[in-house]
Amino acid sequence: MTAQRIHNFNAGPAALPLSVLEKIQASFLNFNGSGMSITEISHRSSYFDAVINDAKDRAKDLLKLDETYNVLFVQGGASLQFAMIPMNFLGNEESADYINTGTWATKAIKEAQIQEKSIRVTASSEDKNFSYIPENIQCSPDARYVHITSNNTIKGTQFADFPDTGKVPLVADMSSDIFSRPLPMEKFGLIYAGAQKNLGPSGTCMVIIRKDFMETANKNLPSMLSYATYAQKNSMYNTPPCFGIYTIGLVLKWIQKTFGTLEEMAAFNRKKAGFLYEVIDRSDFYQATAQKKSRSLMNVTFRLPTEELEKQFVADALKKGLGGLKGHRSVGGCRASIYNAATMESLHALTEFMTSFEKENA
Amino acid sequence: MTAQRIHNFNAGPAALPLSVLEKIQASFLNFNGSGMSITEISHRSSYFDAVINDAKDRAKDLLKLDETYNVLFVQGGASLQFAMIPMNFLGNEESADYINTGTWATKAIKEAQIQEKSIRVTASSEDKNFSYIPENIQCSPDARYVHITSNNTIKGTQFADFPDTGKVPLVADMSSDIFSRPLPMEKFGLIYAGAQKNLGPSGTCMVIIRKDFMETANKNLPSMLSYATYAQKNSMYNTPPCFGIYTIGLVLKWIQKTFGTLEEMAAFNRKKAGFLYEVIDRSDFYQATAQKKSRSLMNVTFRLPTEELEKQFVADALKKGLGGLKGHRSVGGCRASIYNAATMESLHALTEFMTSFEKENA
Repeated sequence: MTAQRIHNFNAGPAALPLSVLEKIQASFLNFNGSGMSITEISHRSSYFDAVINDAKDRAKDLLKLDETYNVLFVQGGASLQFAMIPMNFLGNEESADYINTGTWATKAIKEAQIQEKSIRVTASSEDKNFSYIPENIQCSPDARYVHITSNNTIKGTQFADFPDTGKVPLVADMSSDIFSRPLPMEKFGLIYAGAQKNLGPSGTCMVIIRKDFMETANKNLPSMLSYATYAQKNSMYNTPPCFGIYTIGLVLKWIQKTFGTLEEMAAFNRKKAGFLYEVIDRSDFYQATAQKKSRSLMNVTFRLPTEELEKQFVADALKKGLGGLKGHRSVGGCRASIYNAATMESLHALTEFMTSFEKENA
Repeated sequence: MTAQRIHNFNAGPAALPLSVLEKIQASFLNFNGSGMSITEISHRSSYFDAVINDAKDRAKDLLKLDETYNVLFVQGGASLQFAMIPMNFLGNEESADYINTGTWATKAIKEAQIQEKSIRVTASSEDKNFSYIPENIQCSPDARYVHITSNNTIKGTQFADFPDTGKVPLVADMSSDIFSRPLPMEKFGLIYAGAQKNLGPSGTCMVIIRKDFMETANKNLPSMLSYATYAQKNSMYNTPPCFGIYTIGLVLKWIQKTFGTLEEMAAFNRKKAGFLYEVIDRSDFYQATAQKKSRSLMNVTFRLPTEELEKQFVADALKKGLGGLKGHRSVGGCRASIYNAATMESLHALTEFMTSFEKENA
């Protein structure tokens, strides 16, 4: 069965570490001696308390979080966060800054505007089809927060460093690069990440929130739309997405056991992306779509000379067991998503394929 | 491994059919020949299109839904529905009726009130500790909807029939009895159910909504809080909870293959609950907490002569491989949750245990 697995370059849901999947599979009918599947145990049991606290502790350990931060698990993905953030933090007289670096940032802006919240797009790379990350960003000193999308899955760009926002907290959608590198946590008021790229299955969103920032939130919200509810109830006000949280814990444990620290994780990711960009850069056949300084280490986007060749590239790759290389339906082209779990073996298989495809078709 | 599984009477997350769990386990590293786990496949792939459409089709088939209904998958559980329903359906001049039959109905009411929506509690069984389902309910003819909780997991009561609300659509929380029996669908504008009792793992909520009712909803809502978003995008506006939807499809298939129809499913559930209530009724040792006419076929709640005996009952049962028999932490006592997936073998094991425990301790 394992032998038939493909090299999975999907943008999300994405490849998970094989050892994690094998662990889930092995215990699927009987979790931790409970006589029940992880999908059947009560979230009010000591079994699940251990699961959720373990996942939180590992997240805190990897990001070196102290007790000024809460780690929460929320449903609804990053898309619900787009709405919850302005709902929680923008009162009538308040405003936030947004940096627009692509499709997901645009959607975050839209969800604030639907609620008639006051926001300002303080920087944007829309002028060049979102192919770069804006620099020298000037934020409003009285903004409630500055919202960024740290990695842009569709356009293949990533903030290499984070903007200096002074005392204004950064709020970041890190759905596609959380736990891929260490973070200067002192800059952030809130980080959120849908699990399905770097963390686990879809359906669980991790939210890391600074407690003093959280305490400034609107208090008159429906329970499930208030961060305080999750913080007060250890993310178990209602039944949490147990299977997702369990998998996230296993993935974080895998990072700890395999790489030790996020510095090492980042080194591995730089190395993997380096192989791919090297193949692209030494060729006239492949063209990277993101500007060099803004390139993502998670999503490598590139074009071939023609759309026909791109189609053939994706199809031929799949025949060789390399899946998920089609670019996002909104932009076309090709994309290799190489999150934490992408193996060096997969990277070698891809660069070999790219080299031979170029030879045959250039 | 299988032999070590317990008889699982958890209230939710709850027992799932063993054959479903085995199927998930067997294909966990390679879903349907994709070379990926179900947790790794793209929600934009033909693999997942087949999964979500299969789950929807089976739901429609079992409930005999025609094209006037949408079947949606939403995250956030029933608790987010408590907020979304008034958000979508109650404008400034509009009001809804709520029937209060216990803890969850009370929470649904609270989430409407937090939003300062106009609602009227038109019937309640709070006067007798929610031990019965109110009868002869008079609804407001101009209510936008009448909200009920069809089965009350904590108090062990269930609507045997549904109130006559004339032209006012019923909106029902069926988290704990969906697909346990056929439904008079013409009465309902919206049915919602967190999956973790009768459908699958936690983290996915099924919403069945009548299209003409949906079209009357507030149009200026954040995308993830508007039913229309889910209907327009086949529940894939953003990444849906893929693993949950997959499991739900397998559970619905299991109902179809094992029972054929919801009439047969209901007969099986009546039989199972009958065994338990029979043991309780012929005894002075066990006392049912719900009034006879209002008894739930899903959650059988009962007391023993003392709290000490209840504790011992739960502990001794667990030693014999019978788990999850403790009543909800808010009410104490004992509870056997016997959803669709509870087997006759589990019921026999429980009734045998109850009989012998009574003999030893009465």
